[in-house]
Amino acid sequence: MTQRKRPNRRESNKNPGKTASAGPRSFRGSKKPPGAGQSPYIYGLHAVEAALQNPARTLHRLLVTRNAWHDISGRLSAPARIEPEIVSSEEISRALPPGAIHQGAALHLAPLPEPDLEDAAIGARRLLVLDQVTDPHNVGAILRSAAVFGAEAVVMTERNSPPLTGVLAKAASGAVEHVKVVKIGNLARALHDLKNMGFLIAGLDGEADQTLGEIDVSGPIALVLGAEGAGLRRLTKETCDVLAKLPASGPMRSLNVSNAAAVALYELARRT
Amino acid sequence: MTQRKRPNRRESNKNPGKTASAGPRSFRGSKKPPGAGQSPYIYGLHAVEAALQNPARTLHRLLVTRNAWHDISGRLSAPARIEPEIVSSEEISRALPPGAIHQGAALHLAPLPEPDLEDAAIGARRLLVLDQVTDPHNVGAILRSAAVFGAEAVVMTERNSPPLTGVLAKAASGAVEHVKVVKIGNLARALHDLKNMGFLIAGLDGEADQTLGEIDVSGPIALVLGAEGAGLRRLTKETCDVLAKLPASGPMRSLNVSNAAAVALYELARRT
Repeated sequence: MTQRKRPNRRESNKNPGKTASAGPRSFRGSKKPPGAGQSPYIYGLHAVEAALQNPARTLHRLLVTRNAWHDISGRLSAPARIEPEIVSSEEISRALPPGAIHQGAALHLAPLPEPDLEDAAIGARRLLVLDQVTDPHNVGAILRSAAVFGAEAVVMTERNSPPLTGVLAKAASGAVEHVKVVKIGNLARALHDLKNMGFLIAGLDGEADQTLGEIDVSGPIALVLGAEGAGLRRLTKETCDVLAKLPASGPMRSLNVSNAAAVALYELARRT
Repeated sequence: MTQRKRPNRRESNKNPGKTASAGPRSFRGSKKPPGAGQSPYIYGLHAVEAALQNPARTLHRLLVTRNAWHDISGRLSAPARIEPEIVSSEEISRALPPGAIHQGAALHLAPLPEPDLEDAAIGARRLLVLDQVTDPHNVGAILRSAAVFGAEAVVMTERNSPPLTGVLAKAASGAVEHVKVVKIGNLARALHDLKNMGFLIAGLDGEADQTLGEIDVSGPIALVLGAEGAGLRRLTKETCDVLAKLPASGPMRSLNVSNAAAVALYELARRT
């Protein structure tokens, strides 16, 4: 086990104050606006089932169709801690943002307590750090891959990060109940803190000289991923201990960011 | 090189007639309706740029904002074969389905000629076969991963497969120009044909005894992926030469299907 030093200022990352970037970035329509999908509800069969199974959740209201409740209740390992309201699919749609793919189940609940960076990192072997990855489908799929390949937490900036309900929770398919999500104010500072705690900071970068298969995986690793297109920001890149790429043998070079995260987590898990 | 036999009836796969399944499957709202995103346009900066670079494309109309055209034209290796119409972002939106994330560029074009299974498979080392994967975001991301990890073609059923424009082409980020897409009528028959051509038919299945890292990768492989949740259909599973899973070390077992495809393609490419 690697010896870990405590970071000097553990509160520093909870401060959403100044960041290295000048302001909100323009995505020329390539990303959804930050508020899209904002809803206090988790919806979708797997997401709702996982939240019902999580004793740490405070539950407010459960809207389900008869069929969906039959499915979900049959898979619960203990009786649900909330009485379901059996309603029509249309009634559920009316409670949710337009276009929500709810599969007949929606659960209004309180957010989980947000762990701070140190709490999430102590004892962890694999962390993911997202540098301005904002699309809730991608972040949800990344949480799901983290839950499959055993990454204990995902770190992202408070600014620009999507809410942990709605679209994100649906894409995560229950992973928001299993993987800790740490929201920090300043990414470079969080990376320094992780470094002080003994993590190797590995940035995924298509221009790197070595592949991820070549880096040392014996100690705890924080894997840093940037937004598609833009990639890692300069300051983030400079803070990394090592940069590595995924090998590409075909005519294209760049994966969807959630696909890149899945492959990278697999590569680390495979060699651990 | 493995000796390949010709399939007995090469025309058989172009016949969209009877299939093994009783009819269209109900997804209880988990998938978009088949017509969603149907449009003769490809849009998005990367998708439009790649289509402009593809000499096999017949181009009808190019709508771009001034900024987008500045971006795209600066990256083209030869002058575009079509005169751009410089318009506003709103004008492009009006030409596309609601909610299309076009990034200021849309290209109306003719579909590429559809290769038949044998043409696509001859000389190929890695194929992907999709068994009822219908979400255009997922299929697009899968094409992109195929283009990165060197799979030459993706095979899918005519029935239930999304159009190769719109949402799919945007998610594929240009990969529709690089990866052959073969649409077949009967999946089990296509798998038999591939078997006769010397392919190892490997189905990805979470219940399998061995991992994908354990299968023989010395010859050509057709990797078969099923829909999320449902997985591979019984007949598809029975037709596979080998079933393999991805190792899961965390609390969840199942990845998003495009993430599973990316990891599986990486694993095959890594050992080739």
